[in-house]
Amino acid sequence: MRRYLILAPGALVSNGKTAHGVIRYSSDETVAVVDPQFAGRTVGDVLPYLQSNAPIVASVAEGLRFHPTALLIGTAPRGGQLPDSWRVQILAGIRAGLEIVSGLHELIGDDPELANAAATSGARIFDVRKPPSVPLFSGNAYTIAAPILLTVGNDCAVGKMTAALELVRAAQARKQRAVFVPTGQTAIMIAGWGISVDRVISDFAAGAAEQLVLQAARQDPDLIVVEGQGAINHPAYAGVTLSLLFGSTPDAMLLVVNPRLRAFDGYDVPVLGYADLIRLYEGLCATIKPAKVLGIVLNTFGLSDAEAIAEIQRAGRETGLPADDVVRFGALNLYDAIAPGFRKGEPLCAPVRA
Amino acid sequence: MRRYLILAPGALVSNGKTAHGVIRYSSDETVAVVDPQFAGRTVGDVLPYLQSNAPIVASVAEGLRFHPTALLIGTAPRGGQLPDSWRVQILAGIRAGLEIVSGLHELIGDDPELANAAATSGARIFDVRKPPSVPLFSGNAYTIAAPILLTVGNDCAVGKMTAALELVRAAQARKQRAVFVPTGQTAIMIAGWGISVDRVISDFAAGAAEQLVLQAARQDPDLIVVEGQGAINHPAYAGVTLSLLFGSTPDAMLLVVNPRLRAFDGYDVPVLGYADLIRLYEGLCATIKPAKVLGIVLNTFGLSDAEAIAEIQRAGRETGLPADDVVRFGALNLYDAIAPGFRKGEPLCAPVRA
Repeated sequence: MRRYLILAPGALVSNGKTAHGVIRYSSDETVAVVDPQFAGRTVGDVLPYLQSNAPIVASVAEGLRFHPTALLIGTAPRGGQLPDSWRVQILAGIRAGLEIVSGLHELIGDDPELANAAATSGARIFDVRKPPSVPLFSGNAYTIAAPILLTVGNDCAVGKMTAALELVRAAQARKQRAVFVPTGQTAIMIAGWGISVDRVISDFAAGAAEQLVLQAARQDPDLIVVEGQGAINHPAYAGVTLSLLFGSTPDAMLLVVNPRLRAFDGYDVPVLGYADLIRLYEGLCATIKPAKVLGIVLNTFGLSDAEAIAEIQRAGRETGLPADDVVRFGALNLYDAIAPGFRKGEPLCAPVRA
Repeated sequence: MRRYLILAPGALVSNGKTAHGVIRYSSDETVAVVDPQFAGRTVGDVLPYLQSNAPIVASVAEGLRFHPTALLIGTAPRGGQLPDSWRVQILAGIRAGLEIVSGLHELIGDDPELANAAATSGARIFDVRKPPSVPLFSGNAYTIAAPILLTVGNDCAVGKMTAALELVRAAQARKQRAVFVPTGQTAIMIAGWGISVDRVISDFAAGAAEQLVLQAARQDPDLIVVEGQGAINHPAYAGVTLSLLFGSTPDAMLLVVNPRLRAFDGYDVPVLGYADLIRLYEGLCATIKPAKVLGIVLNTFGLSDAEAIAEIQRAGRETGLPADDVVRFGALNLYDAIAPGFRKGEPLCAPVRA
């Protein structure tokens, strides 16, 4: 078990997806967070829904008094590059012998200064995003016995991982053996296995997704829930989304949306509405292995309960599907509503002929 | 200028896409081809449409008497791995001091035995597929002045590169400054620049496509023609296809099909018909930057002229679009039919805000 010091300078609230996920879902404890913006307060003061009393400090040096064993890079900047301003903080962690856990595209172990410092201090480096070698997509996943549910979304960072994790918890509460499949760096930190599909060479991205569901299937589960990535019309990342859609061979999908988004973060491209999203995701699946969207998960963070309920009702009205915010209201209702829909689909194809 | 000896053992006819492209379109000469299956004949004997008198030999050792300067790996096995049986041939080329030009996923320069042999003999290694570092997709390509035409397809290896090259030649015959954009290993070998988009980390694949059209735009062309990849419902490679569809920011598309295909090579997934393909490609573009399919290119290799004409007429009838086989009948007719459709589309988004 690790004791995490999480590095998220200026980002705990605004860009702290990784920090939030690890604090909320990891079985490893977060002992402190580095964010000068909120130093002196606790995580729970700033983000009540995380239900954490971990202190927020201004630097790694201050965080050391809480006896962390690992420094986790808790935010994912656009492009995954390491900001120079963080380098001094990471070096402080390395020199204190902390394991460095990073999901950045730019691998810590490939950085000469950081790698040399780690070699000197004996600190381990865990580059979560470093992909293993994987084969091309084979179609072997079509033979998996358990139903496979994939979370799909209207943008990045809307809660596809959270929805998948909450649904797995709900399934386990209903005595179902459900396995969560991590496909991104935060989920890998939480679950302790997985592949960051967006870091795989694009020809092999579907093959990586297939290897993950095959690995999950080895546990002989009742249900496999795959963390989705991106959005099918994201200008930069849609290719990753489609690789995962075909490679994870879903039998059903759960559509996760931030209902108030109008344009992608960083791009002026309009975010699609429910009807267009369902048409595109189901339409693409229909060409290989038909899969339906069984329900809608809404991320209503920042809305009042009344506003959230109005958005949930609108989603249900517009789609005719069960809809809920699984963080605000729990996932059991949604799970019970969609579980009757978990059955194996019929692929249009067999595994690749030898 | 290089003098190519092309290595395609057992593959010149059956799996020689790279060899065919280089022989037909490269300005570098092919002096001989290694394929024991057809040794003693010429390329023109076996593949008349390539219009080449290059001799076919049984081994690299035999090919040396035609004074090649480079050994080009002329076939692309599934997954891009280097078959062990080729290793002895490549070593013979290296020991003779030939430059090794390879488009395989498995980089020759990363292979200890081959790299060591090259270091000893002084042979250069050109791993065409080795990707440069590229930024994320930015949307800067939306500001390019020239119309951008992307070839899209119903499967891999149906002729998207060839259609793009023939269309560029036709445009040049009509006194238009047309630039070809290579996105795969064969096209890079032919054009001498480009990025193998399928070899780029999936998060950056759209960014790589964008960099390529931006580079083409620096020549201030009248028309940019981008080589497409894969197919939008290919079980393994669709992610690459979508990255290129969004990243190259096309204003129009040309649909390239093998009209007799019923299932993807190696997979039992049905290949889609014209209506479904046009609906999916245009439907996805419509969410970001609308682009229409302007015409159909048919690969009628192996059909009689009468059969080919029947397929071309069926394509025209089913789609209402200009259709032709640009290899069998030349690209001028199709170019003239679609050129009035070359105009800039309106993206739904601006470049990324700084």
